[in-house]
Amino acid sequence: MEFSRRDFAAFMLGGTAALGLGGQADAQSDPLPSWNAGPAKDAIVKFVRATTDAANSNFVPVAERIATFDQDGTLWVEHPVYTQLVFCFERVPALVKAKPELAEVEPFRTVLTGNREAIAQLGLDALTKVLAATLTGMNVDAFRDEVAKWIGEARDSRWKRLYTELVYQPQIELLKYLRGAGYRTYIVTGGGQDFVRVYAERVYGIPPEQVVGTAGAVSYQYAADGRPVLIKEPKLLINDDNAGKPEGIHLVIGRRPQFAFGNSTGDRQMLEYTKAGQGVRLAMLVLHDDGEREYAYGPAQGLPDTKVGRFPPELYDEATKDGWIVVSMKNDWKRVFAFD
Amino acid sequence: MEFSRRDFAAFMLGGTAALGLGGQADAQSDPLPSWNAGPAKDAIVKFVRATTDAANSNFVPVAERIATFDQDGTLWVEHPVYTQLVFCFERVPALVKAKPELAEVEPFRTVLTGNREAIAQLGLDALTKVLAATLTGMNVDAFRDEVAKWIGEARDSRWKRLYTELVYQPQIELLKYLRGAGYRTYIVTGGGQDFVRVYAERVYGIPPEQVVGTAGAVSYQYAADGRPVLIKEPKLLINDDNAGKPEGIHLVIGRRPQFAFGNSTGDRQMLEYTKAGQGVRLAMLVLHDDGEREYAYGPAQGLPDTKVGRFPPELYDEATKDGWIVVSMKNDWKRVFAFD
Repeated sequence: MEFSRRDFAAFMLGGTAALGLGGQADAQSDPLPSWNAGPAKDAIVKFVRATTDAANSNFVPVAERIATFDQDGTLWVEHPVYTQLVFCFERVPALVKAKPELAEVEPFRTVLTGNREAIAQLGLDALTKVLAATLTGMNVDAFRDEVAKWIGEARDSRWKRLYTELVYQPQIELLKYLRGAGYRTYIVTGGGQDFVRVYAERVYGIPPEQVVGTAGAVSYQYAADGRPVLIKEPKLLINDDNAGKPEGIHLVIGRRPQFAFGNSTGDRQMLEYTKAGQGVRLAMLVLHDDGEREYAYGPAQGLPDTKVGRFPPELYDEATKDGWIVVSMKNDWKRVFAFD
Repeated sequence: MEFSRRDFAAFMLGGTAALGLGGQADAQSDPLPSWNAGPAKDAIVKFVRATTDAANSNFVPVAERIATFDQDGTLWVEHPVYTQLVFCFERVPALVKAKPELAEVEPFRTVLTGNREAIAQLGLDALTKVLAATLTGMNVDAFRDEVAKWIGEARDSRWKRLYTELVYQPQIELLKYLRGAGYRTYIVTGGGQDFVRVYAERVYGIPPEQVVGTAGAVSYQYAADGRPVLIKEPKLLINDDNAGKPEGIHLVIGRRPQFAFGNSTGDRQMLEYTKAGQGVRLAMLVLHDDGEREYAYGPAQGLPDTKVGRFPPELYDEATKDGWIVVSMKNDWKRVFAFD
């Protein structure tokens, strides 16, 4: 690496800023630079100040500082299809290679054709078969390795980027800001717990034990060489969506969150449960109203309904009535992605 | 409070020790003073040094430092009957007061008689009914309050002490020693997760989210006033014993422990799973061979078999073969309880 005259100029300007030239220094100390000033950003900062100031009547001890985040549509893009579903469908060719007899069996035969219209016509039964075949039957370490390989290579169809680049920069900043204030940040997702755990630490700074998700049973068995293995079974243990979110939070965390962030009806009960606790609690919802930088969907704003991320008028009404903060992607976020 | 001459003398002597008089200072710096010198204590210290020394080939990053402990018979007394069972039986009078019709229904009628011999004759079906009636049907906050009240008052029949005083002092020191070395300490118990969480932080320094135990389903509902509540359902979700221990560890923690401590066949799979990981792993078992200070049971040492804490010859053989450290309560522990 060579040190150019331009680098030198930048260094000097940076040095000047570091000496304390007003606005520049303020911008650098803002922990949420990708959030526009406004009620949403204010609510976050006010919440953190109140709950971490020992002199405030709403002070929360560090041990109880729990913040829970939905993933799909809240931390990264969920539209037009959940990333984990893409993984499942893209795993089918490798699955058929290992078990050639599946090539002639539905729905695998249709998936292999690559015919998007035919695949879109597949029903819930077919989907369940694809999920069971691609998410279960192997040991947990083999599954982790498969997901790690796929998520390190696969790219989305619109931006042609790794899925892990499609995380929302304002939320990455918010996660860090909360952790800096002593909050433990959890993901509470309808997605697969074992799937999200593979990349959550690297991408969000959230370790495996702080990922609560939909989980199947695993069974303890001995491999041929006698070593113990945990096999993923096609049996649902936690359906971590809707009412399953507070239920999963109780099971894995055992404390009511102080802060919760979602984006759809699947997060409703988690937000209700959070807000029903004593003291100051903050509940937030991302509204996808930015068709240019991301997507616009959700009928609350007269936007089209979709199969993912439902945000119907009732949810909007409940948010208003119960004091949840609705975050407009278009207005509240200065930047959506790190690559913007 | 008055400051007596005796207090003054103690203060002065303490002051002298603090000035650094040889042996006294060494004893104070031993993190495991209730452990006798010997192979068990050596194995612990060696394990911690190897896994926390960045220059050692067996170094383990802080994020992966997980230590799991069984509770009954490993952290506190389990003989002659599990404390949680005592709770369930002692809850029956209050239960019948709330639902008087139960007074004439078995097994509640027999339990109410207080006739120990008749109660001991009750079968598994009866036991299941008592457990379901005393552990489910209420909201999780009400249950927590009931357990907190009981555990703060109830006393055992031999020592006449609070059950929370019947924790093993060497293990309290070990938990602190491991945490001081960057390990996160978890309880992984066949006992009820919601039960143990009530006192684990106060007694063991282990927060609710680090208690993995047998868990029933909870269901998200709305109380009469509209507030959301989680109701404990009579439906088993995690049977956290035997193979259920590594399965529960995967579900809640998502990482293989570096260190595991148990005392019976119920811990076998957790210890196998721990030892099967790469690098240095430590698996330990408490052998209850101290009839004077605690209890002597377990056929491995020609001691009588019991219904709790089974430690049969096969387990002893596996421990020997797989390099688990068997801890003799009689020989390895200088002190059993803090009140000794």
